Amino acid sequence: MFALSPVLYIVGIMLTGLAAAMLLPALVDLMMGYADWQVFAASALVTLFCGVSLMLTTQGKRTTVLNLRQAFLLTTLIWVVVALFGALPFMFSDLELSYTDAFFEAMSGVTTTGSTVIVGLDNTAPGLLLWRALLQWLGGIGIVVMAMGLLPMLSVGGMQMFKTEAFDTPEKVLPRAARFAGWLSLVYVGITALCALALYIAGMSGFDAIAHAMTTIATGGYSTKDASVGHFNSASVDWIITAGMILGSLPFIAYLKMLRGDSRMLLHDSQIRWFLTIALSAGLVATIWQVAMLSAHPLDALRYAFFNCVSVLTGTGFATTDFSQWGGFAMSLMLFLMFIGGCAGSTTCGIKIFRVQIAYATAGAQLGRLLRPHGVFIPHFNRKPIPDEVSNSVMGFLVVYMLCFLVLAMVLGALGLDFVTAVSGAATAISNVGPGLGDVIGPAGNFSTLPDAAKWALSLAMLMGRLELFTVLILLAPSFWRG
Amino acid sequence: MFALSPVLYIVGIMLTGLAAAMLLPALVDLMMGYADWQVFAASALVTLFCGVSLMLTTQGKRTTVLNLRQAFLLTTLIWVVVALFGALPFMFSDLELSYTDAFFEAMSGVTTTGSTVIVGLDNTAPGLLLWRALLQWLGGIGIVVMAMGLLPMLSVGGMQMFKTEAFDTPEKVLPRAARFAGWLSLVYVGITALCALALYIAGMSGFDAIAHAMTTIATGGYSTKDASVGHFNSASVDWIITAGMILGSLPFIAYLKMLRGDSRMLLHDSQIRWFLTIALSAGLVATIWQVAMLSAHPLDALRYAFFNCVSVLTGTGFATTDFSQWGGFAMSLMLFLMFIGGCAGSTTCGIKIFRVQIAYATAGAQLGRLLRPHGVFIPHFNRKPIPDEVSNSVMGFLVVYMLCFLVLAMVLGALGLDFVTAVSGAATAISNVGPGLGDVIGPAGNFSTLPDAAKWALSLAMLMGRLELFTVLILLAPSFWRG
Repeated sequence: MFALSPVLYIVGIMLTGLAAAMLLPALVDLMMGYADWQVFAASALVTLFCGVSLMLTTQGKRTTVLNLRQAFLLTTLIWVVVALFGALPFMFSDLELSYTDAFFEAMSGVTTTGSTVIVGLDNTAPGLLLWRALLQWLGGIGIVVMAMGLLPMLSVGGMQMFKTEAFDTPEKVLPRAARFAGWLSLVYVGITALCALALYIAGMSGFDAIAHAMTTIATGGYSTKDASVGHFNSASVDWIITAGMILGSLPFIAYLKMLRGDSRMLLHDSQIRWFLTIALSAGLVATIWQVAMLSAHPLDALRYAFFNCVSVLTGTGFATTDFSQWGGFAMSLMLFLMFIGGCAGSTTCGIKIFRVQIAYATAGAQLGRLLRPHGVFIPHFNRKPIPDEVSNSVMGFLVVYMLCFLVLAMVLGALGLDFVTAVSGAATAISNVGPGLGDVIGPAGNFSTLPDAAKWALSLAMLMGRLELFTVLILLAPSFWRG
Repeated sequence: MFALSPVLYIVGIMLTGLAAAMLLPALVDLMMGYADWQVFAASALVTLFCGVSLMLTTQGKRTTVLNLRQAFLLTTLIWVVVALFGALPFMFSDLELSYTDAFFEAMSGVTTTGSTVIVGLDNTAPGLLLWRALLQWLGGIGIVVMAMGLLPMLSVGGMQMFKTEAFDTPEKVLPRAARFAGWLSLVYVGITALCALALYIAGMSGFDAIAHAMTTIATGGYSTKDASVGHFNSASVDWIITAGMILGSLPFIAYLKMLRGDSRMLLHDSQIRWFLTIALSAGLVATIWQVAMLSAHPLDALRYAFFNCVSVLTGTGFATTDFSQWGGFAMSLMLFLMFIGGCAGSTTCGIKIFRVQIAYATAGAQLGRLLRPHGVFIPHFNRKPIPDEVSNSVMGFLVVYMLCFLVLAMVLGALGLDFVTAVSGAATAISNVGPGLGDVIGPAGNFSTLPDAAKWALSLAMLMGRLELFTVLILLAPSFWRG
């Protein structure tokens, strides 16, 4: 058994930070004259108390040197604890959510999923709306830092491909994360500000612009309106958010490199090319479908197609229209896109483009070998050969992904959900997309009507999907805790 | 470019054999006084003419030595040609099927899928019913011979695991197939006869017993009745067929070994153990679900659960009840089972148990490596280490499987099918199960109402699923035909 104290100490720091973050919506509510500020003040107090207590009881053991298991545990623990305490404002507020609902909403937020149980966003106090956006925004930057600093070292599901040579020992996780975090935050804040400004110019209120910019760049998908982005009914808003979701889906390391004057990655990285090609193809196909089969106006079709395809592909989950109405083809396409996700090292979720590429390259080499059994076929990724270890890793990941999806679909079915809701609910949770398909949880629906047990199952799936499955699964192995 | 003539010569032999097979239903119709015998006589004549012509024009090039590409082409060609000509009786008969429908029915037969477009089986002439059963029965033995003699040598999707040491060069395909075919046919006929006898004793007519035994052991699923096996409403019939489907799903090499006095494989093979464990678990879970949630009588629940789970798992597709009525859980479970299939070297289809095992072992080794980065974790199959080449093969297979499934679902959606029909139709075709889910093509439905284009797409998917995808896909590679 390894020492828990260093892990808990960092969790304590995180909680203290979360408490500080709660003051922001409190301030907004106070300034705009809503009594809801008390909700956040109370939540912040509870969170601060727990955070400081945790720090005080464990500070003797504080260290910046974590071993592998401590790093795994810390990762999962941070996300769980932020959801546990991030739920407090939802529970204390006028919304009077049960703790289950509040936890679901917070977990959906911090995992940047975007599934919601709240009905009546249009009349919700601004503090709560900001809190939802903040959770997603923090979850977004959190995952980017983790994907760059932690996951490659943990070798989760092929992420070892992105190991930076200089830093590959577990002891350096924290210093590395800290080093990245500064520059990353700058980029993250910058892109978000840019997106907010564009939305403001396009006609959104300052508040809505900031909230939507946060959840766009985080590819989270929480809106301040019940009708989601459809509420604004503006082509320029749609296109700005489409662009923002794409920006959030590219590897943030490419932006860092660009800042240093090296824009080669942004232009030549094969992951980025694949991602843009898939987004473009899906958007065009969905456009043609709408024009040809549903007699839509070409420009409208283009706008709705790109917005919704990119929203599902990137796992954002904003909606401007109920694409369930586009028929079986669009629903199958969306189910497909749901699984893919964006680039590694971005705020997106899902299987991720690089895994699709590695799987594709492996299958291609396979086909070549069938044709020429004595030929040499080595699958490549980004012009480098893929080591067997990585393709095995990716295979393991895909298998576990499918298994989790099917088991979750069965569990949801067993809890009484109909087939489409169960299957698409499982897919949307594990891929952190947000809305599902069908009447209940589709773009026009809401998760509030699901049974409590389903909400807990979905919360667990969101957590697993967000942390690349293995990071969570490994905690369930008895040998993790033993020796 | 390689020589086509030796391939076409063998196809000619196959067609001549098919023409001979058509005389059997002709004989039955003649004996039972149905004018339909003429349909088969005419079809046999056409088929014989084409077969003999093909043999005559290519006999100068006949050989028992095929190269790798010829072997690939032959495999696909045999299945396509048998479906093309096997469709004739359906088209010429009183059913007056279009050629599309007739081809769909024949392809569904010879691939042992069991999806049907025929409404009114209860009033169909016995010759046609026998023809459907015969197509599946021949397709069943055909695939076993292919899986034992051909596929391991072609290294398709991990099948190289089953290479028998003595025979691993393409030149020996035909002699090897011939060698196996004799003993195999004996076993196949024996098990079918046993099943038919049991069904006869359980109260079926001789004709129904033989037809159902054929489609049970072939895990095909064509029945002689519109209500499928549900028509007989007999617990003993249900259990006999359940046992028969399981017999058809085990590797036939185990039976051959048993005949030689070596029953170790039947008792200790890990593939067989996994298959039985999955079947048992699914059956028990579905039983408990029905008793607990739908207040079913335990014995009835047991019978329906096992029959339908085994029927879907093995890709047979017989129905005794509309399990869509069991709710979202059962439908998700069935979707899961649909993909798995039975053992390699059996008459079943789907991903197959050994690939599930290899994928599982790879994922498990992955998890071990995460816990102990410097430990050595080698995935095992049947107590032997899995070579990287094989796990890459299996990964390639699974990726292509999922891709084909998703593309097919989208194509079906684009052709106007609703989401559940499109998704389950794609799954059922590529896994060669038979019925889909939902109202249209579910256990209570029928494929006749689908648009023609959907029937062709499904036919192609059945072919691909039956021939382990790569065998067909490789023919689409331009380099296959070039050099």
